[in-house]
Amino acid sequence: MVKRIGIIGLGNVGEAVAHSLKKHASLISRRTGLKLEIKSLCDKEKRKRRVAERLCVPFTTQALSLIKDPDIHIIVELIGGIQPARKFIMEALRRKKNVVTANKALLATHGREIFSLAKKKKKAVGFEASVCGAIPLIKSISQGLVSCEVRKIYGILNGTTNYILYKMGKEKIDFAAAVAQAQKKGLAERKPYLDIEGTDTLHKLTILSYLCFGVWPSMQKVHTEGISKISLLDILYAEELNYRVKLLAIAKKDRNAIDLRVHPTLIPIGHPLSETSLSYNAVFLHAYPAGQLLFYGEGAGGLPTSSSVISDIVSISLNEKGIMRREEKLNLKNVKDVKARYYIRFMALDRPGVLASISKILASLKISIASVTQKERKKGKFVPIVMLTHEAREESMRKALAKIDHLPVIQSPSQTIRIEDL
Amino acid sequence: MVKRIGIIGLGNVGEAVAHSLKKHASLISRRTGLKLEIKSLCDKEKRKRRVAERLCVPFTTQALSLIKDPDIHIIVELIGGIQPARKFIMEALRRKKNVVTANKALLATHGREIFSLAKKKKKAVGFEASVCGAIPLIKSISQGLVSCEVRKIYGILNGTTNYILYKMGKEKIDFAAAVAQAQKKGLAERKPYLDIEGTDTLHKLTILSYLCFGVWPSMQKVHTEGISKISLLDILYAEELNYRVKLLAIAKKDRNAIDLRVHPTLIPIGHPLSETSLSYNAVFLHAYPAGQLLFYGEGAGGLPTSSSVISDIVSISLNEKGIMRREEKLNLKNVKDVKARYYIRFMALDRPGVLASISKILASLKISIASVTQKERKKGKFVPIVMLTHEAREESMRKALAKIDHLPVIQSPSQTIRIEDL
Repeated sequence: MVKRIGIIGLGNVGEAVAHSLKKHASLISRRTGLKLEIKSLCDKEKRKRRVAERLCVPFTTQALSLIKDPDIHIIVELIGGIQPARKFIMEALRRKKNVVTANKALLATHGREIFSLAKKKKKAVGFEASVCGAIPLIKSISQGLVSCEVRKIYGILNGTTNYILYKMGKEKIDFAAAVAQAQKKGLAERKPYLDIEGTDTLHKLTILSYLCFGVWPSMQKVHTEGISKISLLDILYAEELNYRVKLLAIAKKDRNAIDLRVHPTLIPIGHPLSETSLSYNAVFLHAYPAGQLLFYGEGAGGLPTSSSVISDIVSISLNEKGIMRREEKLNLKNVKDVKARYYIRFMALDRPGVLASISKILASLKISIASVTQKERKKGKFVPIVMLTHEAREESMRKALAKIDHLPVIQSPSQTIRIEDL
Repeated sequence: MVKRIGIIGLGNVGEAVAHSLKKHASLISRRTGLKLEIKSLCDKEKRKRRVAERLCVPFTTQALSLIKDPDIHIIVELIGGIQPARKFIMEALRRKKNVVTANKALLATHGREIFSLAKKKKKAVGFEASVCGAIPLIKSISQGLVSCEVRKIYGILNGTTNYILYKMGKEKIDFAAAVAQAQKKGLAERKPYLDIEGTDTLHKLTILSYLCFGVWPSMQKVHTEGISKISLLDILYAEELNYRVKLLAIAKKDRNAIDLRVHPTLIPIGHPLSETSLSYNAVFLHAYPAGQLLFYGEGAGGLPTSSSVISDIVSISLNEKGIMRREEKLNLKNVKDVKARYYIRFMALDRPGVLASISKILASLKISIASVTQKERKKGKFVPIVMLTHEAREESMRKALAKIDHLPVIQSPSQTIRIEDL
């Protein structure tokens, strides 16, 4: 069975997909009986013609001409960003073509519209590569766990921020130095805000929310914190307390509400999720009845991601049904109502009675302290006091902190990081 | 679309599958459009009729009557063992029925015959549940990594042995005490040889060898060591050297040969595979171009495993092609030719010159020492000397050990455990 493919966007991933489809053609055909043929490659930059020439396939700079080609069965969109990717995908679906995309920003923003058009046109949208690069996570959840309810997700979904936090802890360097290393490695952009502020993780969490719960959340309502306020001091204190700091996408479902959040989190050392090193991604799930599952692998990069794109191309070519979740009515939990344990670091004057005033405020808001660490003693100077709390409501914690940060003995702002004991 | 299922074997898994198919019927139908109907349940024991009655489905003790039922689309075999499971599966395929099975012993022994009949009859054999219980590993490899070459596999495929090794290290108890704990927990049988001697792991490795390389190895030729010779002493020494002892299934492919082995292995602490605790299973893969991947989850148990069985039922009901690997010609590497680093523990008399005689023998066989640990000093008594070697050929190591174990200052046999630095 011959299936013809058109690829739009010849960046790292696009070039790797084209290359892999050629190189592994006979392997894929042996395994699946499919003959996958690249009908045409497209990039708006003319100099990319060389990629096509090397692979001996036609090239165009006109994406629409490729989308209009009646011979093409699957349009692979790998340009990223919202426009013109959105226009291309919608046009492809309108013309009854299947779509494969790695575009998390687009799906997070316009997924509802895209999947509803796909449903109407009875076409598939493959998006394995949009979350966790090479990990077959979408297929594992949608097919492997087809009879399961996913109840909790803890995901390290962004390799850049994981690399930065990992390097800070490993080499005992500060945030800026770790960012510089990531940039040197090509893992962080010159303006790395999308990664560092958690936006990229939020995009991927939004897609997982649709996949697991049938809910497209409004992204502004999902509490999202990045890692720029994490200091080396916090990472070292956490380690002493047997925790590691990771930027997590968290989703928890109870009866009719889901709690979605993106923020730095303390997780216990010794849990496999905490051993996600360098720029790897990992997702830890609780599903019923399958139990606890963890998936780990490369989160980005042309070659690794090409594996997921091709897996989608093969599934769609074999006429497997696309993934279509019926939308469900579930409320998004307000982060103020979320309960969590907290790591808090105060910078306080080393003076008698300081701990008493902090504890009094916490107690008045029913926040109970699990442990306190205060090591350095420098009379008359600000020194760190680190506390771990028992479970407390976010709202109470915010109130307590506002009061504590007003104490004259405290150098505000105090640092708080939520804990998940997994 | 209605698909009718017959289930043979109402043990833990069979009962959980029947229960889940009933309980999650509407969830499955919403997600897939399928109406999965249990046509009949079968168990040779009459008392299992109660299971069927509770679920309001017909019951029989006659497996063949169920296999002959023309209404049934998929036969689910969950009785385990070689016979009569083999007979039932072959008969089902002959009658052009699809099969789903969790039977690793049967597939490892008669997989070639079963898959070749399935191919002839154009029917599917689903076996997700045969390796790593709830982890969607088979689907991830066969579909998620459809364009990839798997080059290395390191698998913790048996929960019982992982539990025993984990407990020994965690609670500092000896092998027998840990086995007793596993038995008390219902994780180990009264005669737990199949697990402890590595046979169950070997069965699963055999299935992965077919899936990843297209090779059904002759099981007698796969070097298989269990964990009964692992002492608490070794686990503690390994930990001090920053390693953990795990029973691994190992597969490595180079050009035309595959190296398949099952044995206790030292792996580095801090690698996510080493954090596989309790009775969890995990598989760490190197695939090209996807890169390094890890899958982790429940390896057994009725409810978790039922998730994988149902995932197969759904895939087959949606007319997805079964997995069929073309058999490949690859030689099995002889374990004597395998190169590895080694952990060696000698029990030696604490006497001048002992280390010199050991080192001389190792050097004569070109085995070079990476580190030596000798802590206790008890003049005139046997004390442990622990060495880590650089990479050495298995054959040289065996020769060296034979010589060393003949030294009058050595209390034989010496302990060796291979190291994989992952």
